[in-house]
Amino acid sequence: MQFQDSLFAKHMAPITGSAIRDIFKLLGKPGMISFAGGNPSNQALEPEVIAPIAKEVIETIGAPILQYGATEGFIPLRGSIHQFLTEEGVICQESEILPTEGSTQGLDLLLKALIDPGDVVLVEDPTFLGALQSIRTYHAKIVPVASDELGVIPEALEEAMKTYHPKLAYIIPTFQNPTGVTLNVERRKRVAELAAQYGVIVAEDDPYRDLRYEGEALPTIKSFDQEGWVVYLSSFSKLISPGMRVGAMVISFPTLMRKCVIGKQSSDLHCPLITQAIVDSYLRKGLLRPHIDRIVKGYKAQMNAMLEGFSAFPEGTKLNKPEGGLFVWAALPEHMNTLGILNKAIEAGVAFVPGTHFYSEGGHENTMRLNFSNSPVEMIYEGMEKLSKVLNDAK
Amino acid sequence: MQFQDSLFAKHMAPITGSAIRDIFKLLGKPGMISFAGGNPSNQALEPEVIAPIAKEVIETIGAPILQYGATEGFIPLRGSIHQFLTEEGVICQESEILPTEGSTQGLDLLLKALIDPGDVVLVEDPTFLGALQSIRTYHAKIVPVASDELGVIPEALEEAMKTYHPKLAYIIPTFQNPTGVTLNVERRKRVAELAAQYGVIVAEDDPYRDLRYEGEALPTIKSFDQEGWVVYLSSFSKLISPGMRVGAMVISFPTLMRKCVIGKQSSDLHCPLITQAIVDSYLRKGLLRPHIDRIVKGYKAQMNAMLEGFSAFPEGTKLNKPEGGLFVWAALPEHMNTLGILNKAIEAGVAFVPGTHFYSEGGHENTMRLNFSNSPVEMIYEGMEKLSKVLNDAK
Repeated sequence: MQFQDSLFAKHMAPITGSAIRDIFKLLGKPGMISFAGGNPSNQALEPEVIAPIAKEVIETIGAPILQYGATEGFIPLRGSIHQFLTEEGVICQESEILPTEGSTQGLDLLLKALIDPGDVVLVEDPTFLGALQSIRTYHAKIVPVASDELGVIPEALEEAMKTYHPKLAYIIPTFQNPTGVTLNVERRKRVAELAAQYGVIVAEDDPYRDLRYEGEALPTIKSFDQEGWVVYLSSFSKLISPGMRVGAMVISFPTLMRKCVIGKQSSDLHCPLITQAIVDSYLRKGLLRPHIDRIVKGYKAQMNAMLEGFSAFPEGTKLNKPEGGLFVWAALPEHMNTLGILNKAIEAGVAFVPGTHFYSEGGHENTMRLNFSNSPVEMIYEGMEKLSKVLNDAK
Repeated sequence: MQFQDSLFAKHMAPITGSAIRDIFKLLGKPGMISFAGGNPSNQALEPEVIAPIAKEVIETIGAPILQYGATEGFIPLRGSIHQFLTEEGVICQESEILPTEGSTQGLDLLLKALIDPGDVVLVEDPTFLGALQSIRTYHAKIVPVASDELGVIPEALEEAMKTYHPKLAYIIPTFQNPTGVTLNVERRKRVAELAAQYGVIVAEDDPYRDLRYEGEALPTIKSFDQEGWVVYLSSFSKLISPGMRVGAMVISFPTLMRKCVIGKQSSDLHCPLITQAIVDSYLRKGLLRPHIDRIVKGYKAQMNAMLEGFSAFPEGTKLNKPEGGLFVWAALPEHMNTLGILNKAIEAGVAFVPGTHFYSEGGHENTMRLNFSNSPVEMIYEGMEKLSKVLNDAK
């Protein structure tokens, strides 16, 4: 018998994968300058530090590090993440912390726990493409909520909560992916209030928080959460290593924690103990804060190089100027279409992600997301020059 | 507003977690002899071998091992798993291999790709409790298929395929969990034929295959699969380390592979690269086969010690005598109830899993699963003596 696509689950049938991941396949060409990804800089990764830590934790812990572990996470790591989150202003008990495979798994477990087909999930407009795909995997109805240069607009969020009775709102409050925008303090407080008022779980995905190059750190949405409606998603992918896949959720409602643990039992049983123990040891040795101080300097120089490069973009290009994170977001003059331009850019040896992919309902074809963390300063200058030429030819 | 259980997804609402994991919580008591788990022996784990490999792979690969990786897996690992599977008689292309977080994730990704609420999944009766929980998480209808001392009965399987039009059949062919039974060759061939005839994906979960203490290895169901209906789930949890969470799926239909990759993108993006690289290096160094030879000797002695211990069980106890794996399955006289006996056994310092938990529709309260891999021989003698006393008191 032939395998027919009709055998797929209905919600999976239309999902064809991340457009970004398909763009990545075009990037193998030697000399390509990629502003398309969201990778940390290789210079921000420390194999020479991690290698001896890996050996040490395996030797010190011995056989139990190779045995089955608890779904709830490696106990010492829960302790060191608790310490880290306390410093970040996320006040919680250790029992509210669930280590996850990056914040990717945090969102997946929330969706698994909460979403029946047709349930509504609110997202910022635009938002992280990977989150859109995860939400679609659960056959949720995605409702975009208007956002501006201060982040998601509380009045629009309240209106959407009233109208659509969502189960979940997904928000990236700091140096948002893709726009780089940071939600201001008043709005953070208001989002927490609205979550409690309308009984909506807010997933606060905050992986870029510590990559701040200017201005002052803001309190998390979670810090304004009195009742437990905000689930905080933390990740060490941008700070220590994405390849280790270590992040954490903070879940205050015990029954919701229990469902996420049950979901994780069937997703992967538990996160690998070696990677959990490496991150735990790295945090306990006090290596994280000095490391962040160092990488922030490099990223700031890269961001500034990219911002300089925009001066040669077509007149009328609008630009956000983020205070941190990994991305700059640009809107070209309205008549321009970055989908078509991408192919020419790749021919010229430079890549980016068309902004339309980050809008749940498409459109906004004149927008683009540019990543600066994954290219050294001189390549950023070179890439922005090439890209400016392509754009000016296309305008 | 108060968080209400009505906010949970309908399929998650009734799932309260693994009964086995709850039993584990009772086992903290010092001196407890546990036949309840499914852990490999600590003596079968090699932190002294893994620690330098971990350091070596991180130093050798450098920054890329800490970067984002491909969802499709660490390329060298796909190669070394391909070599391993070829030796096991699983003939496939490298492109058909998807590394997963243990075979747990393999089943989860298949369910994510295939199952809409209400779709039917066939399972052996009894079967692995963790699989039952995973299947329930997707709100599938579970239909148990009669099995005997030669494994799942082909006539019953065909009848169920005809009657219920399942999307998936989940089968553990070798040293089954919980019964220890091995599906014979004729039936393996027949299962593969039925899968193709009725268009049902068969998940062949085969983590115990290499833990054979007697008799000859049998060809996999996958080896009889002409068209691609059999998805083979492999795992290094029982051979190298469960805590590393490294396994693999073999998926022959390219469209099904694509959906599983997409499902994995939102589950965890990719398996951690460090653990993938450790297993790859371990395999390439040729460490696995001699290691298996060594652990098989130890497990065989443990199994035999446990089998001896049954002589003191109540008259009328029926026993399988497995040729490998980690478990012995026993049926006490019909009037006995292992659920009630478990508490008395734990008071006496010995634990097991009541067999009823492995039946999708319950019942069979006189059955029990005993694990021998996680206790040294002398503790097995002691534990079986204690357990015999509890059982004889209860009969």
